[in-house]
Amino acid sequence: MIVSLIQSSVTEDKLENLARAEALSERSDGADFIMLPEMFCCPYDAASFVKNAEPFGERVTEALSGIAAKRNAVLIGGSMPESDGGRIYNTCFVFGKDGGLIARHRKAHLFDINVEGGQSFRESDTLSAGGSATVFPTPFGKAGVCVCFDVRFSSFVNDMRADMLFVPAAFNMTTGPMHWELLFRARAVDSQMFAFGCAPSRNTDASYVSYANSIAVDPWGRVIANAGINETVVNVAVDPAETARARAQIPIGN
Amino acid sequence: MIVSLIQSSVTEDKLENLARAEALSERSDGADFIMLPEMFCCPYDAASFVKNAEPFGERVTEALSGIAAKRNAVLIGGSMPESDGGRIYNTCFVFGKDGGLIARHRKAHLFDINVEGGQSFRESDTLSAGGSATVFPTPFGKAGVCVCFDVRFSSFVNDMRADMLFVPAAFNMTTGPMHWELLFRARAVDSQMFAFGCAPSRNTDASYVSYANSIAVDPWGRVIANAGINETVVNVAVDPAETARARAQIPIGN
Repeated sequence: MIVSLIQSSVTEDKLENLARAEALSERSDGADFIMLPEMFCCPYDAASFVKNAEPFGERVTEALSGIAAKRNAVLIGGSMPESDGGRIYNTCFVFGKDGGLIARHRKAHLFDINVEGGQSFRESDTLSAGGSATVFPTPFGKAGVCVCFDVRFSSFVNDMRADMLFVPAAFNMTTGPMHWELLFRARAVDSQMFAFGCAPSRNTDASYVSYANSIAVDPWGRVIANAGINETVVNVAVDPAETARARAQIPIGN
Repeated sequence: MIVSLIQSSVTEDKLENLARAEALSERSDGADFIMLPEMFCCPYDAASFVKNAEPFGERVTEALSGIAAKRNAVLIGGSMPESDGGRIYNTCFVFGKDGGLIARHRKAHLFDINVEGGQSFRESDTLSAGGSATVFPTPFGKAGVCVCFDVRFSSFVNDMRADMLFVPAAFNMTTGPMHWELLFRARAVDSQMFAFGCAPSRNTDASYVSYANSIAVDPWGRVIANAGINETVVNVAVDPAETARARAQIPIGN
């Protein structure tokens, strides 16, 4: 099982971002799963969410569907500002190998933080929250998908009873050093599953600076890949049977 | 708020272990809370559990009550093999400043693991499992207490809605390097609370070798104390208001 983490850089230009995602996906090298970052198609700021919001079926999701079909892979399509019924959601669409939609996760826990001397942000100023957790079947086991801040909610993630977790995300220079690796390792060990996170590359000129460091963690909590900070594609080969081994050797009910 | 972690060494002699706990507690230096290790009163092996089991109200709990009263501190009395109704539990008794019992936690998740090339153990051969989680009020907030393997169960711990977690524990040389620090940091960040773990010192001649490294973690997931591997007493001063600050600045419902 190969997972390709597309740690793309994000510009102001939506079409350029889509073209970049497609170009980088050509380096996914036969991957079974390809993941893009949170808000891969526009800068991570409130004005950009509003400006770039579009419903399912338009340019962004059409491009994502096309990448999945062209690469013959399951595409966890990062996230985008999805407009629906007058609201905007931070939504991850998942497409199958035939380009068909197989799952949609609207970020359930909006990112409203205000760390003294550090990062502040209020997604709830422009975005609406989704509801339940999102899972979908794969040939390698049950996959869970959530978006960024959702990964802090341990019961929300554990209740997925997933074998692998995909998290488009964009931690920042406050919460990244503090919690990024910790949370992916924690979720992996709690559920004894693989945990994958995909973030935009670091751009220190942006209003919101992504911590980057797209990551893969195995069911023992070992970090098996880290993308660093620059634009890159990391292809990670894993043995899905490791999940069963971890659960048999340390049985905690997963 | 001062927490004293008594990382005692454990011998075959129960009375010696009790005397050692009492002697070391004199170094707790005005602590509000004193914690002893899991199975501080006997070696961590099945035969010792059976041989040293005793009910509440006999030597071990009498000694613990005496330490709490003498030090004028809340004592999280590590754990002991508690016999009751023909069964043996891995039980943590908590005593108040007046020496009265204020909580009892029977390890709810028995430690049955078999890691390839690493540690094996089956507590369920001799011990019975407790049931629910255990919390008790303190002047500094709500405390949760669980024993060792319990800390792997994220929902079990999070559902305590505690402000601080006390965990008498004894990880080993397989699970310790892999997961000890990770799990205490994870539980602290998930619940945005203080998390304290207290283990026996390392004895490489024992049949079960304790990883030691008694630990204190703050609500941001920062390791604020680590006792290393030798017998020692670590007194940790913390600001209980840090919990409220973490919860206000990164609001995730705790």
